[in-house]
Amino acid sequence: DLRGQLLADRVLHPGSLRDTPIRAVLLTNGDIDHIAGLLTLREKQTFRLLATADIHAVLDANPIFTALDAELVVREVIALNTPFALTDGLQAELFAVPGKVPLFLEGEQVDTELEGEQTVAVEICQDDHRLIYAPGCARLNHALRARLEGADAVFFDGTLYRDDEMITAGLGHKTGKRMGHMSIDGADGSLALLRNIPIGRRIYIHINNSNPIWRDGPERRTVESAGFEIGFDGMEIEL
Amino acid sequence: DLRGQLLADRVLHPGSLRDTPIRAVLLTNGDIDHIAGLLTLREKQTFRLLATADIHAVLDANPIFTALDAELVVREVIALNTPFALTDGLQAELFAVPGKVPLFLEGEQVDTELEGEQTVAVEICQDDHRLIYAPGCARLNHALRARLEGADAVFFDGTLYRDDEMITAGLGHKTGKRMGHMSIDGADGSLALLRNIPIGRRIYIHINNSNPIWRDGPERRTVESAGFEIGFDGMEIEL
Repeated sequence: DLRGQLLADRVLHPGSLRDTPIRAVLLTNGDIDHIAGLLTLREKQTFRLLATADIHAVLDANPIFTALDAELVVREVIALNTPFALTDGLQAELFAVPGKVPLFLEGEQVDTELEGEQTVAVEICQDDHRLIYAPGCARLNHALRARLEGADAVFFDGTLYRDDEMITAGLGHKTGKRMGHMSIDGADGSLALLRNIPIGRRIYIHINNSNPIWRDGPERRTVESAGFEIGFDGMEIEL
Repeated sequence: DLRGQLLADRVLHPGSLRDTPIRAVLLTNGDIDHIAGLLTLREKQTFRLLATADIHAVLDANPIFTALDAELVVREVIALNTPFALTDGLQAELFAVPGKVPLFLEGEQVDTELEGEQTVAVEICQDDHRLIYAPGCARLNHALRARLEGADAVFFDGTLYRDDEMITAGLGHKTGKRMGHMSIDGADGSLALLRNIPIGRRIYIHINNSNPIWRDGPERRTVESAGFEIGFDGMEIEL
């Protein structure tokens, strides 16, 4: 079987059995799709684990993450709006964007446009190049607009195309707004708002499997003809 | 890209977007390799979640697992040595095997041959067919031997081939025994002990990526020529 063969190939190169090229993990959210991947990095690799205090608190509340050996994985608290060194030559800065607490921590009342340490975006700079990574965003406010202006690249929340698509597809009863995500479509959607901001490359990420831009069709053509790109696993960009 | 295409194919069949054929999940251990997969079953699917009280306690101690909606995923506590209905026609029974607590819950002192609710095996019966599934086992004791005798199939702990292979491969400082796993090789290994017990099919599972049976070589030939099988993802058996 294929998996056995792949593992066999790795056994032939023992040095690679527990190695990853990952030197730092920066969390921008405490929800499962952002943090569960940490559990596959538990095999004694060394890396920096960077997040806001609120997102670290989510990990701290779940003993399963102590599988990340504290001697190898150093947890560093990053303050909002304060530049820090991500790796050699890369400066980064976290800032709040409207969003909500992780689904599994929701109480009876949910503020879907909370601005704090739970949902953040990151600005990464090197020399005169600058990119913004914002996988979750409930609303494009003035502060975010100011950050986006003139960026060489923006990776932006592409969860849903239409605010009601989960409902019309019979997948749930929640709108995108209820989930803390602004949608691509519509007068207040990200496509209309981002295309009027001067940005080098606009790339949708965090795309739900209900989103029709995954398939060839009018929605994908609308996005692509507006000059937006659709992110994919293993994507590499050069600025 | 391939992932985009796969997702697009699923979008064309909306009924399949949140569906799985899984009707019940039975946990035999609370360690990460046994429980982390639950996090990918959080999209509002209905299934029974069966485990001992101690293993349920591991889930309860980690709020991340509340992502499994309690209205859809019913958690059922299973007592040791007490038959229960797994699905239509399948009877099951959990029993303790020597093992240890999950790595991420280890204290200063670790009993590696603990017998309780933390490491269990399951016997599954239908009509006159019977199989045993034991993915972790530190020692083959009399009670386990009695269970194995005459089984149509036994899925057994194949973590390591040699007790010291993690050390010699430079992957860590722990023996198999320290990790709560008896190895395949040696006079007290599972190959020597299981081959002398009357069992229909002997199938190694839970095989670490340091285990040389993944590749063609003397260890794999030793296992196969003794009539043992090597499990693989997607394996199906008929008894």
